[in-house]
Amino acid sequence: MESTLAFLVAARRCEIHDLEQLARACELVQAVSALVHRLQDERGATNLHLASGGARFGAERAARASASEATELAVRAWLAQPAVGDPALAMAGGTRLFTRIALALHALDGLVALRAEIATRGCSAEAATRRFTHAIAALLALVFEAADIATDPAVSRLLVALFNLMQGKELAGQERAAGAAAFAAGAPGPAGEHALLHLIEAQEACFQRFAAFCPPDTLAAWSAAQAAMPLAELERLRRKLLAAGPGTAFVPALAETWFACCSQRLDRIRELEAALAGGLRAACAARIAALRRDPDDPQSLMQALSGLADTVALPGAALPATALEGTPTSAQADAPASAAGPLGPQLTRSIVDLLHAQSCRLQAIGDELAAVRATLDERKLVERAKGVLMRHQGLSEDEAHRLLRQTAMNQGRRLVEVAQAALAMEAFLPPHG
Amino acid sequence: MESTLAFLVAARRCEIHDLEQLARACELVQAVSALVHRLQDERGATNLHLASGGARFGAERAARASASEATELAVRAWLAQPAVGDPALAMAGGTRLFTRIALALHALDGLVALRAEIATRGCSAEAATRRFTHAIAALLALVFEAADIATDPAVSRLLVALFNLMQGKELAGQERAAGAAAFAAGAPGPAGEHALLHLIEAQEACFQRFAAFCPPDTLAAWSAAQAAMPLAELERLRRKLLAAGPGTAFVPALAETWFACCSQRLDRIRELEAALAGGLRAACAARIAALRRDPDDPQSLMQALSGLADTVALPGAALPATALEGTPTSAQADAPASAAGPLGPQLTRSIVDLLHAQSCRLQAIGDELAAVRATLDERKLVERAKGVLMRHQGLSEDEAHRLLRQTAMNQGRRLVEVAQAALAMEAFLPPHG
Repeated sequence: MESTLAFLVAARRCEIHDLEQLARACELVQAVSALVHRLQDERGATNLHLASGGARFGAERAARASASEATELAVRAWLAQPAVGDPALAMAGGTRLFTRIALALHALDGLVALRAEIATRGCSAEAATRRFTHAIAALLALVFEAADIATDPAVSRLLVALFNLMQGKELAGQERAAGAAAFAAGAPGPAGEHALLHLIEAQEACFQRFAAFCPPDTLAAWSAAQAAMPLAELERLRRKLLAAGPGTAFVPALAETWFACCSQRLDRIRELEAALAGGLRAACAARIAALRRDPDDPQSLMQALSGLADTVALPGAALPATALEGTPTSAQADAPASAAGPLGPQLTRSIVDLLHAQSCRLQAIGDELAAVRATLDERKLVERAKGVLMRHQGLSEDEAHRLLRQTAMNQGRRLVEVAQAALAMEAFLPPHG
Repeated sequence: MESTLAFLVAARRCEIHDLEQLARACELVQAVSALVHRLQDERGATNLHLASGGARFGAERAARASASEATELAVRAWLAQPAVGDPALAMAGGTRLFTRIALALHALDGLVALRAEIATRGCSAEAATRRFTHAIAALLALVFEAADIATDPAVSRLLVALFNLMQGKELAGQERAAGAAAFAAGAPGPAGEHALLHLIEAQEACFQRFAAFCPPDTLAAWSAAQAAMPLAELERLRRKLLAAGPGTAFVPALAETWFACCSQRLDRIRELEAALAGGLRAACAARIAALRRDPDDPQSLMQALSGLADTVALPGAALPATALEGTPTSAQADAPASAAGPLGPQLTRSIVDLLHAQSCRLQAIGDELAAVRATLDERKLVERAKGVLMRHQGLSEDEAHRLLRQTAMNQGRRLVEVAQAALAMEAFLPPHG
């Protein structure tokens, strides 16, 4: 009976340990979300600057690059903590998280050269956008991974909400960069209206998934934030961009208007995002606190048992503070004692209740996690299907996404089903293009 | 660049750490499989003994009880190792594994009282079977959990194969116990032919799943083992049991014949099971060794980089042996260096290759694990659906299983689909019976 209880205590400790590791991962996610916001700002200003041939936004761009660098340093300082890379302290899925961190750091390393090229205008607006977007995608993938490996359903839901909000905001940021380049250049960009339409529609889909997973108070804040956004102005400028034909000439000053309007929207989203990211650690702390004051905490029964042991001279009476060491060795002596029942039916009953409560709780956690992860699995499938189409048919990412979505609409099937079909088809596709 | 590499090294270490924890869990699974075999033996002998009114198999039963107790002590001694309950050393999913251990220990505790009742024949053969079966089910659930939380697809496949072999063998053991009781009592048991038919069919389904997941050499050994089993004799005795009507009287001596025949088969299965369980640790060791001599090991690139650092006076030159401590702090100095490229294109290229190889490998592992776990998820659904039917319709386990299977056959649907429907229906079912 003591061994049973000792392993219930160990299970509880392990659960708290996992939540503590998850709380650390959430700290990283919070720092990463701040960095993504800075990089989006820098990308937008860079676009405006480069597309205007260096005439506009020079100081603004430089200031934003410095802000990015400072925030990147904060992320790197967090990662430099000795405990971060310790396998014994790594959360479940540490291998995957560390790999994502390595990929993100590698992408960030590449920005140094990019900034040098931008400073001498040795880089096109499109190329700069692509490279910033690549780094941001690597950081977003890290947040996605954290959501996928989280062992607590409540925290996992928050991470899924945060990831979708960040992804939607990133698409809004790409829209800002594309529009800023088009207005500043005085003419529509090479990618044209299709790319812009894709960015607009895809961000709406992200915000819907965000709304499906975020807690009620965040949802209310989201409605309030949307009401405060300059959406009429944004739609008016979007219309200008979308209605532009090949011969259209924009008033270049619209670039700043567009940039300011989009930035105002992004800043509102960022406020919500920061609140959500900040809430992650609180959610972990709340879960840990709830476990610690749980009336079903096996530790308290362990103490009751220990107190009783002093009275009835139970075999293995001196239960050590660290519950596991030493208890199960007295198995043979222990078992007859529990069979003969000197602990009384009450304590025996309590252990049965604890075991039942713990089994039910873990079952519920498993079910909830599976439901949250199913959404993530669908996204993984769609991303991989896009990759297949990009590699084999030479499509761009948004072309691949449009093809999948169009096929799903035409066939009346879900996007994820079409993605599965595309993946299954890969074996039959020609190697490249 | 060093930080990137440092996190690739950390990811690799984390992967090896996970495999080491998995190897420990496999040790436990091995000990548990030995205990299950002993308990099955004890259950069969007990059944024969009790059903014969204590006339037969007294010494055999006592000897088998002692063998069980000795093997249980070995399991408890393994669990008593101080490192076992340490959350920092727990494998991913430690909470679930520890809970399963607590449940198994609790079930084992209950056997002490059972054996006391059996010794004084204060317990029916049916009740004894039920209580032994309960303890064995708790031990099997532990093996299932280990398969479900394993982070390596090759080891997870082996665990799934082992679990299904053990489950099939357990059903064969239940068949042995039911048949032994019927023959020894001289008349068919109360559960009748339906229960026996279910046990026979369900064990075949388990052995098919085992065959689908086991490695080729084990499959060959399985064919050889089957050829060496007294299957003709078994079928002849099964026919006697199944053809028996309410008035049938068995020759009680057939009990020993049946028990010997079934035991011979179970012992053959056990040999295979022991080989498979023993192979688990070898599989973990092989995976660890493969990772250590992997040409893509980031540690060797780290050393190359460190050697080069001495020559070119790279910032953060003195990379410590424990790669993570200290490296990422030099982020700002590091980044321009990597951008300017004093490491040469070769090392930069190598890191890109490492990142790509690692991403692809983790993707493949994730896909394989998902495929293996899908089988386990289906089993979880079927088990839960059975539970719903047992609770709400007052069915026994094999009645619930038969109902699910019959419904699936009638509707031409998969068992798992019917199970999902049953679970979805739970909300509409009356609370109890």
